[in-house]
Amino acid sequence: MKAVVRRQRRLVLDEGFPEPVPGTGQVLARSLACGICGSDLHGLEHLEELAALAQRCGSATTLDGDKDVVFGHEFCAEVIEAGPGSSGRIRPGTRVVAMPFCAGPGGMELVGFSNRFPGAFAERLLLTEALLLPVPEHLSDILACLTEPFAVGEHAVATARLDGDAVVLVLGCGPIGLATVAAAKLRGIGPVVACDFSPARRQLAETIGADIVIDPAVDSPYGRWETFDVPATLASRSVALATGRMTRPATIFECVGKPGMLQAVIDGAPPGSRIVVVGACMQSDAIEPLMAINKQLSFDFVFAYSPEEFAATLANIAGGRIKAGPLVTKVVGLAAVADAFALASRADEHAKIVVDPRL
Amino acid sequence: MKAVVRRQRRLVLDEGFPEPVPGTGQVLARSLACGICGSDLHGLEHLEELAALAQRCGSATTLDGDKDVVFGHEFCAEVIEAGPGSSGRIRPGTRVVAMPFCAGPGGMELVGFSNRFPGAFAERLLLTEALLLPVPEHLSDILACLTEPFAVGEHAVATARLDGDAVVLVLGCGPIGLATVAAAKLRGIGPVVACDFSPARRQLAETIGADIVIDPAVDSPYGRWETFDVPATLASRSVALATGRMTRPATIFECVGKPGMLQAVIDGAPPGSRIVVVGACMQSDAIEPLMAINKQLSFDFVFAYSPEEFAATLANIAGGRIKAGPLVTKVVGLAAVADAFALASRADEHAKIVVDPRL
Repeated sequence: MKAVVRRQRRLVLDEGFPEPVPGTGQVLARSLACGICGSDLHGLEHLEELAALAQRCGSATTLDGDKDVVFGHEFCAEVIEAGPGSSGRIRPGTRVVAMPFCAGPGGMELVGFSNRFPGAFAERLLLTEALLLPVPEHLSDILACLTEPFAVGEHAVATARLDGDAVVLVLGCGPIGLATVAAAKLRGIGPVVACDFSPARRQLAETIGADIVIDPAVDSPYGRWETFDVPATLASRSVALATGRMTRPATIFECVGKPGMLQAVIDGAPPGSRIVVVGACMQSDAIEPLMAINKQLSFDFVFAYSPEEFAATLANIAGGRIKAGPLVTKVVGLAAVADAFALASRADEHAKIVVDPRL
Repeated sequence: MKAVVRRQRRLVLDEGFPEPVPGTGQVLARSLACGICGSDLHGLEHLEELAALAQRCGSATTLDGDKDVVFGHEFCAEVIEAGPGSSGRIRPGTRVVAMPFCAGPGGMELVGFSNRFPGAFAERLLLTEALLLPVPEHLSDILACLTEPFAVGEHAVATARLDGDAVVLVLGCGPIGLATVAAAKLRGIGPVVACDFSPARRQLAETIGADIVIDPAVDSPYGRWETFDVPATLASRSVALATGRMTRPATIFECVGKPGMLQAVIDGAPPGSRIVVVGACMQSDAIEPLMAINKQLSFDFVFAYSPEEFAATLANIAGGRIKAGPLVTKVVGLAAVADAFALASRADEHAKIVVDPRL
């Protein structure tokens, strides 16, 4: 089959890539649409480091950057046939989305970050039958494939346990930042302040529901807290005593993931802030712990989503409660994936580029 | 009066230090006992950096390391007289403990880390009347002065919102680590695993209630998780899917506060762990955020305590529910404070050295 393969740190279109064969509990599916993710861009350059880090985290996978990898984990696909032991729950022809996990011999592997399970930048791929979620008929392939990145935002906001008093600041309006804005607004939380250097992404943040957008080149995102009349909670009392001033609680979603961002947040955040780290900074990074202690900051480093969050996100997109469509700035075929990876890093031109292997 | 003064980065006994005069809402008190804290040791060397950092955090204080500072914020004192506007609630002669905060012109200042409010390594000091807590008659001055460090442990454990399933790991068994062990055990949480290179401190951890003590030179504190039969919670499901293995939730209290400790915790912690950072690392420190993301770790950086936590800690020490006594390894007079600062950093000889200015 045709697949876009990472080979010697480059993407090549291989027209004779081995056809995947579904094992027990798996289905073979046709890739209909798959978004290019920031972690795909990073994986192209640094898959070896990512694999080493996953192993240090205790992952049982055996990802090897010297072997072929097919990226693509934000997919909508159509079931072709089931492997042995199928429950028959999902019929051939059904369009599905799924969390990108398949069981390998050593444990769960990430579809699209595996030598064993090619991702959806290919004509066909394997999925775990138990994880399949049928896509409602009226929902397009392209909107359905946005379930995965929007589920990341849903998980980030769920982790933050926001209440109605929270002032929300989203740093970085790439797809994950935008998904975070959407998940916060879906809960009726506000004001949601979104922050990005790119005018196009600030525009997208407004479209998706941000109450206030800030260009950090012009304005400090942190200064705006002073203008919100949010009651001080009991929890901030000890902070107030310690720092000598009363402040408002704040929840900050770090969706940039570049070195220096964490310390910038530590510098800027009001005392007592909760920081949810969604952006994956790939490099070692320096922070000043004493400053985080003085301000009594908390950090939740989040990854992926639960099955419930994934299913709820599909339902929210299908129900029109998350308007994900404007994120998609380009749709390309397999032959254009390598070029699209280069385009995808241009924040002012592109938010989400989707690959349709049938084009 | 006599006071141990930080002057040109050295401690000197000044017999003619200016007598403090209580302002509105303050009382003049006689220092009866005051513990030497790790932050005093650090302040002796690095007060200028601490002051700069406090200002960056938005503190309204005007701490100047070029001017005299009298350390001592873990005190028991006796009220001598009240300043103007006293409520008369606390009579002269009453023994008290108090959170070490006094209102300066720019906001709350830390007693013992202020040019305006000398700490309790002096004959007399000023306290905020509204914060005074009378010490029960049967409780010794020395035990009472341990309220402050034990309140830090209480706050750390309260922040962690532990439930009965939690496996608790306390890294570092200095006074704050020991206070954390005590606060966890007081809630009936366990097993509590305490970890320190020093045999004397491991012994103290056992005395104060740790279920298991570990010498990190011999044994990995993290390996022990495998041996605890703690049910996996729902919250760990997405972690398990992401990492390909099921793990137990863990709460880790970092009470060492040295560079490299945070990354060591990130390396060692089981996925889904919650880390409470109590130890104040004074230097810039490097971490790998992507690893924290892969493991879905959370960090709470904590400082001080609330008024309720402080009062509850005094009650727990007075009621014998926290057996703080064994921590005190030496009691010295003002003339020996400078030498005691040097002694206090020897983990295998000393846990808490208390200063009694009457000696």
